[in-house]
Amino acid sequence: MTHPTKFRQIVLAARPRGNPIPSDFRLEEVDAVTLGAGEILTRTIWLSVDPFMRLNLDEGGLTGSLPLGQTMTGGAVSEVVVSNHPDFKVGDIVEGRTGWRDYAAGNGQGLRVIDRSLAPLSTFLGALGMPGITAHTGMITLGAAKAGETVVISAAGGAVGSIAGQIGKIAGCRVIGIAGGPEKCAAVEALGFDVCIDYRAPDYAEKLKAACPAGIDLYFENVGGAVSQAVFPLLKYGARMAVCGFIAYYGQPEASPGPDHLPDFYKLFMIKGLKAFGFAWLRAASPNALSELAEWVKAHRIVSRETIYNGLEQAPQAFTDVFASKTGMGKVLIHVGPDQTAPI
Amino acid sequence: MTHPTKFRQIVLAARPRGNPIPSDFRLEEVDAVTLGAGEILTRTIWLSVDPFMRLNLDEGGLTGSLPLGQTMTGGAVSEVVVSNHPDFKVGDIVEGRTGWRDYAAGNGQGLRVIDRSLAPLSTFLGALGMPGITAHTGMITLGAAKAGETVVISAAGGAVGSIAGQIGKIAGCRVIGIAGGPEKCAAVEALGFDVCIDYRAPDYAEKLKAACPAGIDLYFENVGGAVSQAVFPLLKYGARMAVCGFIAYYGQPEASPGPDHLPDFYKLFMIKGLKAFGFAWLRAASPNALSELAEWVKAHRIVSRETIYNGLEQAPQAFTDVFASKTGMGKVLIHVGPDQTAPI
Repeated sequence: MTHPTKFRQIVLAARPRGNPIPSDFRLEEVDAVTLGAGEILTRTIWLSVDPFMRLNLDEGGLTGSLPLGQTMTGGAVSEVVVSNHPDFKVGDIVEGRTGWRDYAAGNGQGLRVIDRSLAPLSTFLGALGMPGITAHTGMITLGAAKAGETVVISAAGGAVGSIAGQIGKIAGCRVIGIAGGPEKCAAVEALGFDVCIDYRAPDYAEKLKAACPAGIDLYFENVGGAVSQAVFPLLKYGARMAVCGFIAYYGQPEASPGPDHLPDFYKLFMIKGLKAFGFAWLRAASPNALSELAEWVKAHRIVSRETIYNGLEQAPQAFTDVFASKTGMGKVLIHVGPDQTAPI
Repeated sequence: MTHPTKFRQIVLAARPRGNPIPSDFRLEEVDAVTLGAGEILTRTIWLSVDPFMRLNLDEGGLTGSLPLGQTMTGGAVSEVVVSNHPDFKVGDIVEGRTGWRDYAAGNGQGLRVIDRSLAPLSTFLGALGMPGITAHTGMITLGAAKAGETVVISAAGGAVGSIAGQIGKIAGCRVIGIAGGPEKCAAVEALGFDVCIDYRAPDYAEKLKAACPAGIDLYFENVGGAVSQAVFPLLKYGARMAVCGFIAYYGQPEASPGPDHLPDFYKLFMIKGLKAFGFAWLRAASPNALSELAEWVKAHRIVSRETIYNGLEQAPQAFTDVFASKTGMGKVLIHVGPDQTAPI
């Protein structure tokens, strides 16, 4: 397997102010590196675009801060094209955070070799990757969703939300999604959600209330802000809340004053006996999460929806579209290179 | 047993703006009522002054709203002086929310007859009442405090905090209190807390950090605001947080913009894998809570500290002092009338 003499990568050119724009990023060409002992070179096939990546683009971000000029971090599915490492052989398909590059050199740490017989490769960035395991952890392992309960999921059209809702249906819950626009809501309902409410509609709060006549047992939170303000009054006493994401806040600088008032949220704990939990997907995941998800994917009980952009150079636009709510359903992916190892 | 022809009560005269002041309340005399069938008349001995009572003094408060001119609600220990009710006999000591009155007539609903052999009567508004059961629920039943863990308690000198810390020591935890001023901190440490940090000191955050070298496993939250801003960075991954109270916010109107920014709190859930829970004391309490507390009080493993004001007319000043952080240690009580039934 050969590789080009120049590699391409996308670096952080400027710290986004609020939501990111394409000019916050820059495509660079660099000389191909020579591998050392124990190192491997991977060629990116699929690149993952995730909202949480916004969190470390601010200076002094709580989750760490990416220096200006550095390559964007991000999950990818790649093919091993050169290997000086005993655990990886040429042709292996690996998943891990190799970043926004077409080729990545490294020591293999944090990469997992994928069993490609389980599902199409892109699924390992979706239902069988971080979003799937996150959804499983929030709904099942920590959320303890039970048959007959009412579950509400914000950003129901997103990578995590779309899977969380399908897991809720498998668990026997009544599942209400929240998404932006009638088209996306229809696509969410096509996944089996009982109903999906359009948060852009003027009667959003009333419709949500009507969809939850018995109140909400579990709220799977991906958004925050005005979307959630309509959810909170509907929580049952003793409700659980999986704090998975909060895309409405990702562009906001730390500690800025804003309309989202902590004391009002605090009051929910007292008034609703709320139990809220956060989690990092890998630290809290059940050891069974991946095998359960694989079984559900195989049985078509979980359908992975994907929105695909073609070419590494499209990554900044895709990332921008995520925050402008302009992407389509499900997992947002960049198709960087062909899957040349695919069985014929 | 006779009673006067006039009863005294304290009513809400004006809605407090921010923290309450004495002129928000008014002492009234009303004619003694004639009891109907199934009713009882109680004479107040001890009246409870609790921060949470501030929450329902606003218009449209989330916990309900006390109408202007109505008698303040509040817990009390009283003596039954007239009874037309089979469950109560004259001379019984009862505890319940009879309000800021010297005499209260009612059907007895919500009142419990007290076993006065267990402890002094005022203890039934402290360690053996709402504060004690709240502390037990937050620390043990829901907080699951374990030996060797580091627990931090804000408002450690308060009715709930002072008991929560003593329960933490019984559970084998390292217990760090937070209170206002060196005098109160010394009194908190005298209860057995490992250390108490003065949040008014200029080096508060550094001292708190130094007191928690291994991070915080459980935060028992009674305050919010700047006090908690120093706590949050010290939470361990996977920390629990009992959201018991938030006195820093009680005077703030609903949904006002402020320096306390919900997005920063949301981030804790992701970064710290935080598990936060609220609770209403009676709904979440363990059935064993009261008997465990009684055992600990009897064995002097829990000491009830009290700050006492004399006379019903002092209740507005006591309530005002609570929010101005001018009260002494522990439970704030009004001694309304003598305990005439005390064994000689």
